[in-house]
Parts: sequence; C-alpha cells; structure tokens
Amino acid sequence: MIYFNSDYLEGSHPRIMARLADTNMDQTPGYGEDAYCDRARDIIRGLCGAPDADVHFLVGGTQVNATVLTAALRPYQGVVSADTGHIAVHETGAVEAGGHKVLALPGVDGKITADQVDRLCRLHHGDESHEHMVMPAALYLSCPTELGTLYSRDELSALRDVCDRWRLVFYLDGARLGYGMAAAESTIDLPFLATVCDAFTIGGTKQGLLFGEALVITGDALRRDFRYMIKRGGGMLAKGRLLGVQFEEMLKDGLYMQLSRHAIHEAMRLKAALEALGVPFLVDSPTNQQFPILPDSLLDGLRERYGFATIQRVDDQHTAVRFCTSWATDPRHVDALIGDVRRAMGN
Amino acid sequence: MIYFNSDYLEGSHPRIMARLADTNMDQTPGYGEDAYCDRARDIIRGLCGAPDADVHFLVGGTQVNATVLTAALRPYQGVVSADTGHIAVHETGAVEAGGHKVLALPGVDGKITADQVDRLCRLHHGDESHEHMVMPAALYLSCPTELGTLYSRDELSALRDVCDRWRLVFYLDGARLGYGMAAAESTIDLPFLATVCDAFTIGGTKQGLLFGEALVITGDALRRDFRYMIKRGGGMLAKGRLLGVQFEEMLKDGLYMQLSRHAIHEAMRLKAALEALGVPFLVDSPTNQQFPILPDSLLDGLRERYGFATIQRVDDQHTAVRFCTSWATDPRHVDALIGDVRRAMGN
Amino acid sequence: MIYFNSDYLEGSHPRIMARLADTNMDQTPGYGEDAYCDRARDIIRGLCGAPDADVHFLVGGTQVNATVLTAALRPYQGVVSADTGHIAVHETGAVEAGGHKVLALPGVDGKITADQVDRLCRLHHGDESHEHMVMPAALYLSCPTELGTLYSRDELSALRDVCDRWRLVFYLDGARLGYGMAAAESTIDLPFLATVCDAFTIGGTKQGLLFGEALVITGDALRRDFRYMIKRGGGMLAKGRLLGVQFEEMLKDGLYMQLSRHAIHEAMRLKAALEALGVPFLVDSPTNQQFPILPDSLLDGLRERYGFATIQRVDDQHTAVRFCTSWATDPRHVDALIGDVRRAMGN
Amino acid sequence: MIYFNSDYLEGSHPRIMARLADTNMDQTPGYGEDAYCDRARDIIRGLCGAPDADVHFLVGGTQVNATVLTAALRPYQGVVSADTGHIAVHETGAVEAGGHKVLALPGVDGKITADQVDRLCRLHHGDESHEHMVMPAALYLSCPTELGTLYSRDELSALRDVCDRWRLVFYLDGARLGYGMAAAESTIDLPFLATVCDAFTIGGTKQGLLFGEALVITGDALRRDFRYMIKRGGGMLAKGRLLGVQFEEMLKDGLYMQLSRHAIHEAMRLKAALEALGVPFLVDSPTNQQFPILPDSLLDGLRERYGFATIQRVDDQHTAVRFCTSWATDPRHVDALIGDVRRAMGN
Repeated sequence: MIYFNSDYLEGSHPRIMARLADTNMDQTPGYGEDAYCDRARDIIRGLCGAPDADVHFLVGGTQVNATVLTAALRPYQGVVSADTGHIAVHETGAVEAGGHKVLALPGVDGKITADQVDRLCRLHHGDESHEHMVMPAALYLSCPTELGTLYSRDELSALRDVCDRWRLVFYLDGARLGYGMAAAESTIDLPFLATVCDAFTIGGTKQGLLFGEALVITGDALRRDFRYMIKRGGGMLAKGRLLGVQFEEMLKDGLYMQLSRHAIHEAMRLKAALEALGVPFLVDSPTNQQFPILPDSLLDGLRERYGFATIQRVDDQHTAVRFCTSWATDPRHVDALIGDVRRAMGN
Repeated sequence: MIYFNSDYLEGSHPRIMARLADTNMDQTPGYGEDAYCDRARDIIRGLCGAPDADVHFLVGGTQVNATVLTAALRPYQGVVSADTGHIAVHETGAVEAGGHKVLALPGVDGKITADQVDRLCRLHHGDESHEHMVMPAALYLSCPTELGTLYSRDELSALRDVCDRWRLVFYLDGARLGYGMAAAESTIDLPFLATVCDAFTIGGTKQGLLFGEALVITGDALRRDFRYMIKRGGGMLAKGRLLGVQFEEMLKDGLYMQLSRHAIHEAMRLKAALEALGVPFLVDSPTNQQFPILPDSLLDGLRERYGFATIQRVDDQHTAVRFCTSWATDPRHVDALIGDVRRAMGN
Repeated sequence: MIYFNSDYLEGSHPRIMARLADTNMDQTPGYGEDAYCDRARDIIRGLCGAPDADVHFLVGGTQVNATVLTAALRPYQGVVSADTGHIAVHETGAVEAGGHKVLALPGVDGKITADQVDRLCRLHHGDESHEHMVMPAALYLSCPTELGTLYSRDELSALRDVCDRWRLVFYLDGARLGYGMAAAESTIDLPFLATVCDAFTIGGTKQGLLFGEALVITGDALRRDFRYMIKRGGGMLAKGRLLGVQFEEMLKDGLYMQLSRHAIHEAMRLKAALEALGVPFLVDSPTNQQFPILPDSLLDGLRERYGFATIQRVDDQHTAVRFCTSWATDPRHVDALIGDVRRAMGN
Repeated sequence: MIYFNSDYLEGSHPRIMARLADTNMDQTPGYGEDAYCDRARDIIRGLCGAPDADVHFLVGGTQVNATVLTAALRPYQGVVSADTGHIAVHETGAVEAGGHKVLALPGVDGKITADQVDRLCRLHHGDESHEHMVMPAALYLSCPTELGTLYSRDELSALRDVCDRWRLVFYLDGARLGYGMAAAESTIDLPFLATVCDAFTIGGTKQGLLFGEALVITGDALRRDFRYMIKRGGGMLAKGRLLGVQFEEMLKDGLYMQLSRHAIHEAMRLKAALEALGVPFLVDSPTNQQFPILPDSLLDGLRERYGFATIQRVDDQHTAVRFCTSWATDPRHVDALIGDVRRAMGN
C-alpha cells in the first residue's frame, strides 16, 4: 500500500533523527530553557526579520491554537474563523473548552474575506444589545487553509486593517506554512507574516519534524506571561530541547523550504496529470493537498493500492477525495498513482 | 410613549405583588427549601402529570439554560440548536463558558427539524475522525421560538425519536411557554412536554412574574446533584421563597394561562388588523411576538409614539420590526397602534 | 419558632416592598438601563465620593464574586483568600468554574494579613519555576468576614500596598457591609473603600432588600466591558429596574445604615447578656453574627424554640453555634432568647 | 558541570533512539491508531494482568492529569490531593482550568491517609449545606510522591476502600512509577495497581523515554469516549506511533525496570554515603529523589561543580536540597559527588 492520506504519515527527515541522536545524552535544563531552543529562536527571529519576536515551541497544533486563543481573548470574546477552519471543526471544541465561541463565517474554498470580518464586527458593535452577544476579538486563519488554498499578501493586509479597526488579535495557523510559501502563486513570506499577524505558527509536524509547532508572537497583547499559558494548557514539554534541536536543524540552512518545495513539486505533477485526464477538482489548490473528483467506479480499484481520504460525495457517481504529498513523498509513488488513474480512465 | 419592545417591560401581575407583600415578613429557610417552593413544586408536578419530576426555580433564562446544558454534557459534547436560538446568539457565550460548543443548524422561521438533527448525528458518528469533532449530545429548542413560531406535537415527537436514537438530552426553553400553549394553533401542553422532553422550563419573567423560570426535569440524566449545579452557576437565590411564592400564585388557579391568553388575544388583534391593511410579515407567528414588515416612511412616525424593536432591513424601503404583547398589554394601546398604522397607510 | 439562622430569613423592609408596588406597572427598558438604576447608581457614587465609579447591580453574592474574579484574572492567575473565605468554601467552586484557583491562606478569626499576602506573592515571583504555579493576581476579602470580624482602615491600607506592590486586583465582598460599617469599632466607610479597593460590593440581600448586590468598580482593570461579563455569567436581570428601585429606596435617605445599626444593637445586646452569663465565644465578633460556645445540654432545649446554626464541636460537652441578627430582628425575640439562656444556665 | 537537577535532563535510552530511527520512514495512521501503539497496549495489558484495560498514550504529565480528572469529574466535583501534590502546586492550575477545585489535604512527607480522605468526605456529605461546597469525587495520588516517598499496598487498599465508600474515582500519577516499584521497600506492582486504581499512569518522560505517559484505565467511569477527551485537551499526538514505538521498546523485555533499578541503586549509594557522614534528610526517601539537609557553607562550593534543586531553608545555616538520579546517571558522577561532600565535611 502507498499512502497519500496525510502529511504526517512518516517520522522525520533523516537529518532531524540524526541530530536528535547526536544530542541525545546532553544534559540540559527542561521546559524550553536550553541552548538548542535559544538558538532555534534566534534563527526564527532572523528568518522573520523580527528581532523582538517572542518564539515558543509547542508539541501540537490543537494545543497551540487553544493556548494562543485562550491567551488572546477575554472571557466574553470569541474568535472569527472560516466555517471549515480547523478550530471550528476538528479540534473537539478545544477553543470552547477555554470558554470561547468560534464565530464561524461561511468560507469560499476555505477562505474568508476582510469584508466578511468587517461586516460581522460592525454588526456586533452596532447592535444595541451587543452585550448579549459574544464580541469578536480575534481572527483565526490557516494558510494554507484546510482546502489547500492560500491567502495573498493583499488579502492578509486587508484583514490586518480590519483587525486594527475593530481591535482583533490576528492569529495565523501555519501548520502547513512551508507548503504555502513554496507554492508557485504564493506572495507571502515570514517577514511579511511577522508584520501582518500578531502571532503565527511555523508548522513542524506536517513539514518533516517528528512533532512541533513554532509560535511567533509579535503583537504585544499576547506576549505577557505566555509560558504560564503553555504550562496551564499542558503544552510545556519537559524535554523541551527536543523541539529546539529539531527546529534548529530544519531551519538553519533552508531544509524546511527545500522539503516544502519537494512536496509542492510532487503535488503539482499529480494535479497536472489528473487535469490532463479531464479530472475536475473540488477546489483549485496550489499546495500539497489536492482534491480531485473521481468516479466512484474508479475509486474502489484505487483503494486496493492507495490510501487517501474521502472528502464528500459530489453526485451519485462521483466523490471528492484528498491526496496529500509531503516532505517524504517518493516520486515513484506519484508516478504509480498517475499511471493507475490514467489506466483506469481508459487512457 | 407606549412600549411594545418586549414582554418584560413591567413588574409583575398585581396578584403576584400582593402575595409577595403578604408573605414578606415570614421567616423561611433559604435556597428554595421553604414551604412556598414545595407547594409550587407540587402544583407544577400536578399540572405536568409528572409526580416524579424534579422541579427547580432559577432567576433568569440565560442562567437556567447554561446550568442545564452544563449538567447535561460531558466536556467534549455539544448542544444542537437552531442558528437563531437564544443560546446560539443572545447569551454572550454562556454555554461556551461552560466549555461546550453550540452546534448551530440553519433554522426556518426559527425552527429546526428532526431530519436535520438526525443527519448531523449520523454524519458525526459515521465520520472516521469523529473523535476530532464535538459530539452532539443535547438538543436545545425554544417554544415559542425567537421568531414566535411553535413546534407541533408531531414535530416534538419526531425530535424525541432522534434524541433517543442518538442519545441526546432533550431540553426545551419555555421562556414564553404560556404564550405558546395559549396560541390557537398550539398542540402542546405541560403533560406532553413532561413526556417528550428530558427537561423544560416554564417561563415566569416574560409571563407576569417579577422574575423566575421553573425548570422541570423528568429525564434521569439531569436529576443527580442538580442543586450543586445551580449553586455553582450562581443561580441559587438566597431568598428562594420569592420564586416559590410567585409560581404558586401564578399557577395555583390558572392565572398563568389566563394572562397568556390575554397576550395572544391582543397579538392576534394586531396581526389581523395589519394583515387587513396588506402588511406582510417576516414570519407567520401565532404567538405574542409579531414581525410586520413596514415601510420606512411609516416607521419614523410610529417611533415618536411607540417603542418596538428593529429586526432587519428587508429591502431599500422596508424594515421588519417586532411588536410584543404580554400579560400586561393594555388593549387601548393596541387600538391606538392599529389606528395610527391605519392612518399612516392612508386607510 | 424564632429563627436566628441567618440574615436572609425574611423578605424585604416594608418601604422596599411598597416602592416595588408603586413602580410595578411602569414600563422600563430591561437589563439595568432604566432610570431607577441610573438614580441608584448616582446615589451610590455620591455616598462613595467616587463620581467616576462604575456601578452594577447583580442578584446574588456567588454570582457577583464569580463575575468580578473571572473578569479580573487572566487564565493562569488565581485569587488569594482566607481559607474560611466564602469563595474558598461556600460557592461550590464557582471561581474554579471560571478556570481559576483560590489560593487559600490560613486565616485568624477569618482574617488574613498584608504580611501573609506579601509573602505568598514574593515566594511565587521569586521561585525559579513560578511559571509552573498559579500566579496570585487578585485579593478577595469579605468585610465583615464569615466569622463576623472586621478589617480596620490600617489593615486594609496595608493590604492595598501589597496589592500595588504585586499588581493584585483588590476586591472586597461586602455582603454584610452595612453591619460592618455600623459596628462600634468600625473604622471604614464607603469613601474609604472606594479609595482602597479596586472593586467592592454593597450587599442588599442580607441587609433588607429582597435580593441584590451593588458592585462598585473604581479600578480601571475591571471596568472594560463589564456588562458582557454579567450577561455571560447569567447575572443580567431582565427586569433590572427591580434592583435599581430597591437600592434607590434603601440608600436615598439612610435607611441602609439605620437598619444596619438596628441589627448591631440587637447583636450587642445578645453578646453582652451571654458574656455576663460567662458564656465564651468562638470569636470576638463586633457585628451581627455571634458565635457563643454553649453546653450541649442547653442546646437541645434551645432548639425546641429557636433556630440557629451549628458551627463546630469545641469539646465533648460544648458546641459553637451562630446567632444572626438582622434588619428584621424583633427585639422581643432577643429578649426571649436571653431569658431562656439565662434560665437554662441556672441564673 | 554534573547535573542532578531532575530525572529529565537527557534524551532517551539509546535503544529507544535506535528504535525510533529504525521505524522512522514507516507509513502509519496517526493519532495512536497504528500497530506500534497496539502492540505497546497489549504489552501493558499483559504486564498489568488486565486484559480489558484501556491504554492510552499521552505526551506529558500535566496533560494526562488534567485530561483524566476532567473526564472523571462532573462540574461541581473536585479532586482530593495532598497539599504537595503535583496538581495542587506545579501545574499552573490545569485542573482548575477544567473547572474543578483541588481539595488539598495536609500531607506528611507528601502522603495522605485513608482516614483523612474519609473524614473529608464524611464532613462534606454530612453537612447540611453540602450543596454549597465542592463535592469530593476523585482521589489523586502520586507514587512515588513529590518527596520521593511511597504508598504501601496496605495504604493503597485502605484508600481504595474509602473511594468505594464515597464513590471517588481513584487515579494514581505514576510519572516515576518505575523508580517506585524498583525501591527496596516497595510493595506495589502493576497488577496490584490495575486492581486498586480506576486509572494510573506508567511514566515515560522521567524513566528513559524522550517523552510519554501511558495511561491505564480499568474503572468503567473513565473509559467512555476517552479519545475525545484527549483530543479536546490537546493531547492527541499526530504521529502517535512515536509513543507506541517507545513504550513497546521500553516494556517488551524489562528495560523499564532495569533502568529503574539502576537509578535506585545510585540513589541508595548517595543516600548511604551522606548518612554515613551524618547528613540528615528532609524526608526518608527510598526512591530516586534524595533530600539531604546540607550546611549552606558547603552548598556554595558544590554549586560550582554540580546542579541540584534548592527545596527549602531549614534553619539559619542549613538548606534542604534535592539530588535526582535517573536511568541515565553515570555512577562516576555519584562517586564524584560523594567524594566532594566528604571532603567538604572534613572527612
């Protein structure tokens, strides 16, 4: 079986494993206060052009999302998200566990617009009974989105303006950020994100680390006492240096983007080949998640050899599925998949 | 000025005030453990035909909703509601404050259907990553809804079946229950609700009491230690007998339904008169909330003499507004309003 | 039976009832935005000499305590309290329900000292693993305390200094504040509290209202969006004017202190009489709660005629009990109690 | 520098690292649903003699404690703990974050007794105002405790009886369980814990893994939907197989206990040597944490060469400190420390 189910199927890039082994018996302080974490923080500040940024390392995505949003919001405030946003759908209510409502806006291809957010805030603050409603006070985006799409620099700038207008904390979930930055149509980079967001993550788990999300905080609202928040949320790893070691190795010389480009290259090969076969897509994704709509008759055969996710029924005879490439994707596996689909479609 | 803004503009029915004055200097235990509360509980059990029901008295609606749902749900579970439901919109996230997501379904005229709830639950439990999503485990309805509409006996029975199928706690918010039961088209009564729901409230605040909601619990899941829940939620009134005195007086001889019928009578007079003038309505409400769509040109004049709520712009020249009648509505005020609209519309 | 069990046995002072009846059929906006509340707020600002204070009215004590502390604390912060404090013992974890730890210090006669609070904060901030512990960030006192004792002006000033030093929000629960201010040894008044606290309550429920606590906020940390907090906590009374009407009547011409002095007068009569009989007390209380230690042999007889609370066994043959006087105490009842104890003790 | 600061200074045992490297490029499902986790679960069930136990793997200790207790308690319930318990002191209020109070009992050498817990429960349920207080409903112990001490089989059985009597969920935090079971005086083993507890953890982080705690659930109250709880709490590791791989390797052939015995051997050597020098101890610990009380004059010198934790000032001239040994302790380091102390004490 060849698996395209997700981008966290394998362990970590061999350089990461080697570095963990090399440093294994060092004695270090715990909880992220070691030299590896310090160096990784410095590298990230450098890559972001943000010498004053606070950088924290957490283990997982749900954990960092919930921790950031719980820190950002007062009790009666909520976070605006696309209705398909990870926090809105796939975190078992971790944001609500902190006492906060996710204010879901209908997304298009997983994205929401500055106008939508502005209208929501204007309606809230203009309503005479606004005190009876949850106040929007943070904005959550992921980039790439759950549907693989990207926000452009202009779109993010417009959202920043809305956040300034209504005093929202702007948080961007970058669980797949490398894949987003490596996409051909991408207009974003780390220095831009450090300017436009109050906080964002540089994902590790789906990008070639064993685990780990680096949180970059540039907005003042979130800096204060953040390590208390991490500890309270169960996110302070005892051997925190495991995170520092991994991020240092991944970011010190460009491995992160090199692996990201690999995943994009393979995804675009798959996309082009399927498009050439006339396969439609649920969404036009420029990143490592591809959502072709395939005939059900074809899917049964594919399932014998490939793993992939079923997304939704499109009509009586077609289903949208998801194929993920990643830092670890073997090009021969993509070749095999393309060949099998081509044969199945009678070409 | 004459106010139709809501059904909680005045204090309480004079009989309630008189009874509070009569019992004012009695010495009683606190926290609802007095003889007045006991008698009111017995009356309610009798009216519901539910001798084993647990009955609690709380001060306000948001309080009772949040307390019930926090008691009903395990941490990872959420409550299904219409998107217009009071808990979904107008309680400043009190359900989320308890750690729970409101799973909002798109309502029609404020109502949701058994099919919608069934589909949501089936999708959840059929999804292979269901553990990553909030589990639907309670159903919240209000009857009348926020838009004045009613659920029929058949609709509620179908919803009960869905709750049984998926093990949802069925909770009905009866803040305006009397107005609902008094409506001409109503098919529900207290004994039926005691059978079909796990818990429901008999509203007092909007029905002629100074304040107070009676909570009737028939389902076993909610009974245990419920007074701890009330106390923790800040809802245990020190002089609990104030609630018992009021509910006893209101319910002992039919005053509750008498006042409810009065409000419905006045609402129907208003509705019929406006319909006769060709005024359309946002929703066809059989209860004490009426939502006519009026020309903006007419509204300015009306606002000089009447208070009412603005609901939404319907088009460039028309706005849906809300007029509430209540137990306290003076028929002459309805006459005056009808006359003024009639004149303004040139009849 | 004559009840001395608590100070919330009766309804309200007749003037309060009369005023509620007089205003009963007025139409007013809901949620505390009416003219009665506005006037009551102005009166309180005047009595406090604090023209800029924010004043809110809530129904009950647990509710106002939880709402204030949830607003005051960030998620990882806790509130310092005496181990006998109401929030530490008798609110079913309402503070923890908001996600916060009560940092209990051992009290002496229900009181804690500035030194104790200072030491706790110094230890916390001096500890190298402080991020692993809840940060003290608010101070909760009640005055009178649960044991009837009072903080002096000097003690409160010293506590204020500690709060300034460690940036704690200083909140004083005045559920029985009138009885505290009316005590002979009292050195506090409203203008002083408005200076020394960030927020405090003027209790109504135990002081002659049907219900209600007035919250006075002078510290900036608590002002922002406080009405959202009230609504979220289920504490926003629909017919908010009921609170305004009551507080206006109680405070406009000194009735509050007049009733408080009555309760103190009766309590001191009881205390003096028992002391004259050689009865020891669990604590030397100058306020309306008295804690005599009585022989068990005597208590059985007393229980046939009087209601009172059992506090703790002191030795094999003696028990500390609590007698409360209040605004409503009939002097003849105190006379009767004194007479019966005297006879039982063989005098 | 030689560090005895904690038992999580190094990475993991070389066999663990090797096994992670060997399995690195396997493709597996995420979230603990892989074959490695399944095998590790089977091994644990076998070692516990509990074929029906549910076994889950989480990353860290605070996370697993908070997740278990949030699942165990209804909103108004709290967990009983020693006042020195990890959840009471060193988790930044993670239990309170879930809405629950930690009911702290004064410990002796970090331990509490069945009598203490019984008395607390009896007082609670016997109090007429028990609904105003948090109900004790779970028991949290750690074994070894924070002070290195152990509960005996008899003590745990007595605590179990109390839990049965008052319906408490019995949860034991085994972050250092191997060190506890390896101690000479230990009377506990895994099969016994599986019988006496409702849930307990087998710690990995401090016992030679990179990270990870195995949670064993035998009580029915905690089984239901526990994976939802893990996800909601941010504890569901995407590459869950990292936990399975590590626990399988550690437990399949006795490495866990072999490493534990090593740590105990080194700790006992240190203890015996210091005792021979007349050094008193804060507590008589049979496990890998040792708390000698040393002259301050000696400590300054030691600090130049050794890392260790300062626990508390004992008198003007002495301080209790903590030395931890672990699976990774080099015997020559212990020799060096013993030698240096001996010289410093003039022997």
